[in-house]
Amino acid sequence: MNLKTLSIAAAIMITAGICDAQSTLPGLKDDFKPSFFNQPGQDYPQVNSQGYARFRIKAPQADSIKVSLGLGGRGGTKLLKDADGFFTGTTEGPMDEGFHYYHLTVDGGVFNDPGTLNFYGSTRWESGIEIPAQDQDFYALKNVPHGNVQQVLFPSSSTGTSRRAFVYTPPGYDKNKSGRYPVLYLQHGWGEDETAWCNQGHANLIMDNLIAEGKTKPFIIVMTYGMTNDVKIGRGSLKSFKIEPFQTVLTHELIPYIDANFRTFADGAHRAMAGLSMGGMETHMITLNNPDLFAYYGLLSGGTYTSAEIKDKSKVKLIFMSCGSREKPDGVKNASAELKSAGMNSVSFVSENTAHEFLTWRRSLHEMAPMLFNIN
Amino acid sequence: MNLKTLSIAAAIMITAGICDAQSTLPGLKDDFKPSFFNQPGQDYPQVNSQGYARFRIKAPQADSIKVSLGLGGRGGTKLLKDADGFFTGTTEGPMDEGFHYYHLTVDGGVFNDPGTLNFYGSTRWESGIEIPAQDQDFYALKNVPHGNVQQVLFPSSSTGTSRRAFVYTPPGYDKNKSGRYPVLYLQHGWGEDETAWCNQGHANLIMDNLIAEGKTKPFIIVMTYGMTNDVKIGRGSLKSFKIEPFQTVLTHELIPYIDANFRTFADGAHRAMAGLSMGGMETHMITLNNPDLFAYYGLLSGGTYTSAEIKDKSKVKLIFMSCGSREKPDGVKNASAELKSAGMNSVSFVSENTAHEFLTWRRSLHEMAPMLFNIN
Repeated sequence: MNLKTLSIAAAIMITAGICDAQSTLPGLKDDFKPSFFNQPGQDYPQVNSQGYARFRIKAPQADSIKVSLGLGGRGGTKLLKDADGFFTGTTEGPMDEGFHYYHLTVDGGVFNDPGTLNFYGSTRWESGIEIPAQDQDFYALKNVPHGNVQQVLFPSSSTGTSRRAFVYTPPGYDKNKSGRYPVLYLQHGWGEDETAWCNQGHANLIMDNLIAEGKTKPFIIVMTYGMTNDVKIGRGSLKSFKIEPFQTVLTHELIPYIDANFRTFADGAHRAMAGLSMGGMETHMITLNNPDLFAYYGLLSGGTYTSAEIKDKSKVKLIFMSCGSREKPDGVKNASAELKSAGMNSVSFVSENTAHEFLTWRRSLHEMAPMLFNIN
Repeated sequence: MNLKTLSIAAAIMITAGICDAQSTLPGLKDDFKPSFFNQPGQDYPQVNSQGYARFRIKAPQADSIKVSLGLGGRGGTKLLKDADGFFTGTTEGPMDEGFHYYHLTVDGGVFNDPGTLNFYGSTRWESGIEIPAQDQDFYALKNVPHGNVQQVLFPSSSTGTSRRAFVYTPPGYDKNKSGRYPVLYLQHGWGEDETAWCNQGHANLIMDNLIAEGKTKPFIIVMTYGMTNDVKIGRGSLKSFKIEPFQTVLTHELIPYIDANFRTFADGAHRAMAGLSMGGMETHMITLNNPDLFAYYGLLSGGTYTSAEIKDKSKVKLIFMSCGSREKPDGVKNASAELKSAGMNSVSFVSENTAHEFLTWRRSLHEMAPMLFNIN
């Protein structure tokens, strides 16, 4: 045993030493490691190879800490306090693979876990944890050429503001000074914002890896805020959502700005729109309202199209619809079959063993990207 | 009184209704407003026109909440709990203008304020609050042409990783396909990272505004991680800091990557390096070690140069040194005078009524930028 092996063994013993009573659950493996999204130098939260998550929070004078993550419907994970003032606990069972938002309730107040990074979801910056997925390689940071993600501030006369968008440009964009690229407009979900697709979704890394493998054409991705908070919608009131304010920003302001400032193919045949959840609802409305602007449509856990809704079917090159297997996969499968029977090009995709969460949408982007901008 | 005025008056009354006992302090103005950096829809923390900060946190079963911000040496601001389970409190006196990091101590545990955004400082994501400055206009988001801030992932063989940098490209960079630009390499301070200069410092907006007013040449700014955490340095041990790992990344990996992928003037005469605090220490070491790589040097609350250190004085076009008036302004003034007496071009700048904080560095960048790349 060399020194390096020894120090790893010692580290494992230290970790084992602070396990709480729950670690003695039959079958629970003691191979917990810090979550991918932990802040620098932070040991907790941790995840084991079975997908259990373990939390550890210091708050010596607190009476109660609960983690909002846990098994569905059971109200999260209650942490237990030790003599040193640390609250520790492990989820009752394995979590689904992929990314999960969560927060702490400390003596009745809602706070984030100081051990991990924050992600914008539920209209606030929330803690996030990553349960490593079997197929995590497709969104890993690898030693391949990387595209850039740039923040642009575009003028919006309809809202009287400079608005933010993030623009992914593929590897080689800056060197290839004459080439033009198609564009995917990609929307986040309710309570999220324009940071979600890269922070939680790794959209840039998914593209970098697909391009390095020659599996997709290089294209630009544009992500902006879907104005969810401006219209003060709640989870239950999406039916009263008005698309016009966002539609104006997207179609009258952002698209012209992108076409003027980036080397795009500025026509509908080279433009796609897709969105997850509420972003799918926006995609559905905006593509139907603007049949000349987009030729590729994607709804990611975001509803379905019917052939009757599509007025000029010749302008639509692809309709992609997806969801997690823990959602209602028959919906996208049946909708895709109906569109095909009406002579349209449609693909459905179901992410195995995932729910209405980001691993579903990472996988959906990974499936959809190679199908975009391939049809003349 | 029209309806709009009425609703504003009602809002002020509601705010006044929840003031705690401290709001009756003689002379305290009751014109508190949400801080600029609050999360969407969050009313607290608030700041009044005198620079007092007020905090309000819900934690019904907690016994004690303290805010780390307050008057120097007095240990922050203790909040008082009301019957509804909210802890509220106001700083004992006005804060310095500008940006301040802070955190909460809730029953002995360290958490962030759920009302405001987080900023990377002290090697963790901390809460931040903004006390509006008299001169805040120079870093405001205005309706002017905006440059972009792009995340690049560059290969680093010395560390075996893809490393992140943010690159500010000035307005017009994408349209002006043949123009070349000088580059400023701009470093953060101890415990911060490559996000600090744009998130806390508004470096991009400072540049956009200066360029719109014709006050500075357009140039590129590159910001990357100074590896503070990798070398595990503490506040007290900067003397044992080894510059070589970061120097290798910057000079052998990042600069060549930027020169290959952006339209730069790739010579020392068109390259500047500056940094705040520990980033100034890095700038000092790296510029002296690499006299051919940079012609403009900036230390922002980051120490001083002596003329004896500069081997080939003809290669140095400008040395800019600054700090806040609450630091040791004689240090930068005297050092600048000594450099001038040795025949060098040096400028010192003192930010009035600020300490070792970001308003000092925003103002320093605003003063320094117009002096860069102006000397043949």
